Amino acid sequence: MSLDEERLARVALSQLTEPADLRLNGLVTELGAVRVWDHLRGERDLRGMKTDIAARLGSIEPHRDLERAQRRGMRFIIPGDQEWPVQLDDLAGSISPVDGRGGVPLGLWVRGPASLDTMARAVSIVGSRSCTTYGLEVAAEMAARMTLAGVWVVSGAAFGIDQAAHRGALAGSDDGRTVAVLAGGADKAYPAAHRALIDHIASVGAVISEVAPGGATMRQRLLTRNRLIAALSRGTVVVEAAARSGARNTASWADGLRRQVMGVPGPVTEASSQGVHQMIREGMATLVTGADDVLELLGVAGEHLIEAPRGPRRARDRLTLRQQQVLDAVPLVRFAPADSIARTAGIGLVEVGSALRSLRGHGLVAESSDGWRLTPLAGS
Amino acid sequence: MSLDEERLARVALSQLTEPADLRLNGLVTELGAVRVWDHLRGERDLRGMKTDIAARLGSIEPHRDLERAQRRGMRFIIPGDQEWPVQLDDLAGSISPVDGRGGVPLGLWVRGPASLDTMARAVSIVGSRSCTTYGLEVAAEMAARMTLAGVWVVSGAAFGIDQAAHRGALAGSDDGRTVAVLAGGADKAYPAAHRALIDHIASVGAVISEVAPGGATMRQRLLTRNRLIAALSRGTVVVEAAARSGARNTASWADGLRRQVMGVPGPVTEASSQGVHQMIREGMATLVTGADDVLELLGVAGEHLIEAPRGPRRARDRLTLRQQQVLDAVPLVRFAPADSIARTAGIGLVEVGSALRSLRGHGLVAESSDGWRLTPLAGS
Repeated sequence: MSLDEERLARVALSQLTEPADLRLNGLVTELGAVRVWDHLRGERDLRGMKTDIAARLGSIEPHRDLERAQRRGMRFIIPGDQEWPVQLDDLAGSISPVDGRGGVPLGLWVRGPASLDTMARAVSIVGSRSCTTYGLEVAAEMAARMTLAGVWVVSGAAFGIDQAAHRGALAGSDDGRTVAVLAGGADKAYPAAHRALIDHIASVGAVISEVAPGGATMRQRLLTRNRLIAALSRGTVVVEAAARSGARNTASWADGLRRQVMGVPGPVTEASSQGVHQMIREGMATLVTGADDVLELLGVAGEHLIEAPRGPRRARDRLTLRQQQVLDAVPLVRFAPADSIARTAGIGLVEVGSALRSLRGHGLVAESSDGWRLTPLAGS
Repeated sequence: MSLDEERLARVALSQLTEPADLRLNGLVTELGAVRVWDHLRGERDLRGMKTDIAARLGSIEPHRDLERAQRRGMRFIIPGDQEWPVQLDDLAGSISPVDGRGGVPLGLWVRGPASLDTMARAVSIVGSRSCTTYGLEVAAEMAARMTLAGVWVVSGAAFGIDQAAHRGALAGSDDGRTVAVLAGGADKAYPAAHRALIDHIASVGAVISEVAPGGATMRQRLLTRNRLIAALSRGTVVVEAAARSGARNTASWADGLRRQVMGVPGPVTEASSQGVHQMIREGMATLVTGADDVLELLGVAGEHLIEAPRGPRRARDRLTLRQQQVLDAVPLVRFAPADSIARTAGIGLVEVGSALRSLRGHGLVAESSDGWRLTPLAGS
């Protein structure tokens, strides 16, 4: 059985039912796409599927549909193809508690020059459509730095965080390392206001969908689409999400697939970060503050191991231990005589006198007729 | 041996060395404060302590010092007193890796009407002195809600988050359920700009210190003071902290004492939240977004168990499962005829027609000559 036969059968089957139909998935795993398609076409019923799809069957001509899509710049890739992103195979056996859907897609319609098998290093950045300026900036900045580091950015082309992630990725890489996963056909622009953005992504990266060209965007398809965003990436970053958000659905998929789930915190006074804070609090997501944190968690490359922020290097760090002990005994406000400082420090007066003069040389203590005290430079 | 003798011995010893001196702590545990004081007063040396403190010994008259402090409205409480906050006993054996200090304080100088033994339900709220308006607002709001719930708020009277926490607590409770733990004498105002605030706290709550009245504020004492803030409370909330911050020191003490450490996130674009994000990321602190989260983590009372935020209740939630299935199959943009929706939903046409009319009644779908589509109310 050739890959072409298999492909045509999957083109046909993908048009018969909604994506992520576990009944069809099971049949294809059991019998193979070609046999399932032959059966259905041959007027035989398979576990009640025939009744549901009879009305659609007549209009499907996979040869014609595939050629038509190819003329319009799309291809249909299936498991076994060189370009097939093998990470999608992790979806085998997956099922969403929300709608009972899941599984490996029958195939992917792809529009754009990017080869999906080069996307092994990919992260998805998702979040609220009704986000804040803060969220837009963080998402765009993070996406730009990810693509600069050679990591692809996957998102859903929606309003808000999604589009900021795509735009950031486009700004960060000349070769457009970004993939938009749509819930309708890969030839459609949803939302319509993002037609220019989606066409741009298709011209340098990839716009993909498991729904056949021309397919409409529906709520159910948005949810099943989210599993593809999660599965394509090594990790999912949620930048802003209200308590109830599609981004949380994507994060759940990522979690279920044992991908890294990450969340960017924000002000606790904003509802837009509430869902992210909840995920971090519940231990579902790891807190990340920027691209460096993400790269480290994904273990993308050794050079991205971050240094823990240490604050500005202080004058104090250059002192000997003894000088630090004396400094610690110098009052912040009141001037104190050297013998009082010596008693506080538990160090002999001569040594304290010497240390105080060194500290004055460092600009850390000041002397008056009443004794010594710290300067502002000594901080606290 | 009476508690009064013990008290006077501890008054004397607390004036001989810096607070949290583990050598003195060990001697007191081993011999008792009265015997240690007798020994030192009797010109005998104890493990080299005598040499260090000879200059101070002559000026100490604990009777006189205690009476003088009492005339100025202060008392000195020690372990065994009814008012002694027993949670401080958890400090036995504690030691800071920063300066090798720690241990249960010899006693506490207290200024104010609050009885410290009623403070079993207390939380400390700490953070940067150089904080943002956001941090001030969050700290004040959280503190006010804690005191309203009957929980005491402990902090350090410093600039920034500390003072916002005290002010919030004062605003939230008529009887001033807040305690300021100072690094200098309880009769001193440090910082000086907070004299009015500190005096106000002393008039309704409590200002406390392990340093004798008149004692100066020094860096070393600020660090050892932090262990008291941590130990007095069931948990420590860090509202804002830069990468290197005294608040982190307090959090380390709380962590070492197996108290709950909590952190309030903020914008990742602000350095002022960097230290908090780091603590959450490292698993040292639990993310909290407000007083409800804190009360729940501290298990203060059953009525404070929070409900996970669920977002606004949606029209969708009132639908039958079948109606939801039909709704999920209605396009977002394009109008689709009922038979197409029926095929997508996998439900018979008659039932779909009935469901669509109900959905129209709910304002969730709109009908045109081309069929049906979702309304904005249906959201997605």
